[in-house]
Amino acid sequence: MGYEFDGQIAVVAEETPGRFRADLAAGWVVGGGVNGGYQLAVIGNAIAAALPAKPDPIAMSAYFLSPGAPGPAHIDVDVRRDGRRVATVAADLVQGDDTRITVLATYGDLAGQDGEVLTTAPEIDLPPLEECVSNSFAPPELRKIAPLLERFDMRFHPDQVGWTVGKPSGEGVLSAWFRLIDGREPDPIELLMVVDALPPVTFELGRMGWAPTLELSAHVRARPAPGWLKVRHQTRNVAGGMFEEDCEVWDSAGRLVAQSRQLALFPR
Amino acid sequence: MGYEFDGQIAVVAEETPGRFRADLAAGWVVGGGVNGGYQLAVIGNAIAAALPAKPDPIAMSAYFLSPGAPGPAHIDVDVRRDGRRVATVAADLVQGDDTRITVLATYGDLAGQDGEVLTTAPEIDLPPLEECVSNSFAPPELRKIAPLLERFDMRFHPDQVGWTVGKPSGEGVLSAWFRLIDGREPDPIELLMVVDALPPVTFELGRMGWAPTLELSAHVRARPAPGWLKVRHQTRNVAGGMFEEDCEVWDSAGRLVAQSRQLALFPR
Repeated sequence: MGYEFDGQIAVVAEETPGRFRADLAAGWVVGGGVNGGYQLAVIGNAIAAALPAKPDPIAMSAYFLSPGAPGPAHIDVDVRRDGRRVATVAADLVQGDDTRITVLATYGDLAGQDGEVLTTAPEIDLPPLEECVSNSFAPPELRKIAPLLERFDMRFHPDQVGWTVGKPSGEGVLSAWFRLIDGREPDPIELLMVVDALPPVTFELGRMGWAPTLELSAHVRARPAPGWLKVRHQTRNVAGGMFEEDCEVWDSAGRLVAQSRQLALFPR
Repeated sequence: MGYEFDGQIAVVAEETPGRFRADLAAGWVVGGGVNGGYQLAVIGNAIAAALPAKPDPIAMSAYFLSPGAPGPAHIDVDVRRDGRRVATVAADLVQGDDTRITVLATYGDLAGQDGEVLTTAPEIDLPPLEECVSNSFAPPELRKIAPLLERFDMRFHPDQVGWTVGKPSGEGVLSAWFRLIDGREPDPIELLMVVDALPPVTFELGRMGWAPTLELSAHVRARPAPGWLKVRHQTRNVAGGMFEEDCEVWDSAGRLVAQSRQLALFPR
């Protein structure tokens, strides 16, 4: 143990039933707020603490109400239905008087899954690690506004980093190898963060501004195998000042372990 | 007016603030319950009634807690944040002591949208109406357990109806032309139903059983133009006894007007 991510998502039960205390880490700031996916992992950890027999997120839908800030927070978990196989909860992450994120989620035990797998989605196509572009090359001015970059070892597809030199591909796809910097192995709670860790796919459309998320829904489809993850973000429909961003996460065993879709504001 | 769908999704404000009365129509039964998408349209109508200045669903995430039955219901709408551009609400559809569906949703005004559209998703490929297979050919025994079929004029892609004769394609794709039987033109609330109206895509995988939805998230991306809609359901990952079902809805003007994804139990 002793991985930094475990400390950063740690929750402590309070006396109020269903309430958990957390501390949002400054190391997860990006631009004007704390990364949304990281906050989902904190919420996810609180829900797991409230549901000891159903430790794994299966589906989570998050609506973003205000930007999170580093510092104290609490999570209120309300179990709406606790069935034989899955439980469904509502939960809020709150700082002071402001709800940051409100979620609905279904939890279960992914270790007890039916073993049948029929995946027709093609695995994410990434060149070998050594041919990809490391986030450690990010310029100091970017690292300053995005300290969360220090949390990851990311290796971007070399054909999808045009945005870093002002030459975006215009394709609306961003993919990368991914792991936490200190080698913590992935688990279902971590995947709630991974689906929102890459830069917005709009960077590859030449829009370098902030793309605030309205809604993000994630499905965790299996416990990930140890090792590097492959992550891909893609948008196929920019309209009405918004865009959808689909994300897939594949594990080192070649399994599609998470799918998510978010709706975000298209940067002007 | 006078369209049957408008009567079936009608809501009446009660004295309790945020509470609306509805009556789930027997005509929307399929198998053991009332169609989920229809219930989402009823909930969507109640939310619209609670937010007069923001009449259109932009995102809705629904978690299904118990099967709905024909008869009285009420919807409780709790406005969580009402901003300049969008409002976010939590809402429950309840019958007796049982919550059927709990949702989070973001509403706004789709008429006031930014006009820029960049869609790289390919339009759904369907042969002309007269070359497609009408739901009016459904056998009487199917109509008996699925009275909701009488609500629609659906014309299925002829290459994706193998399941009707015991020869599923195995491809995991189902697409159809779609409109309501009485010619009511589509609108954003109706799209909440359309994304869950086709048979489960698992029929084309040879699994003819019920596929109960755990979670469904829908994005309405534009007000649909009048006329026929094109609808496609697709699954790309069956695993852990569950499958995801992605849906796209395109309008007669060739615009991608709704996207949804649901997570459902894979029929045994």
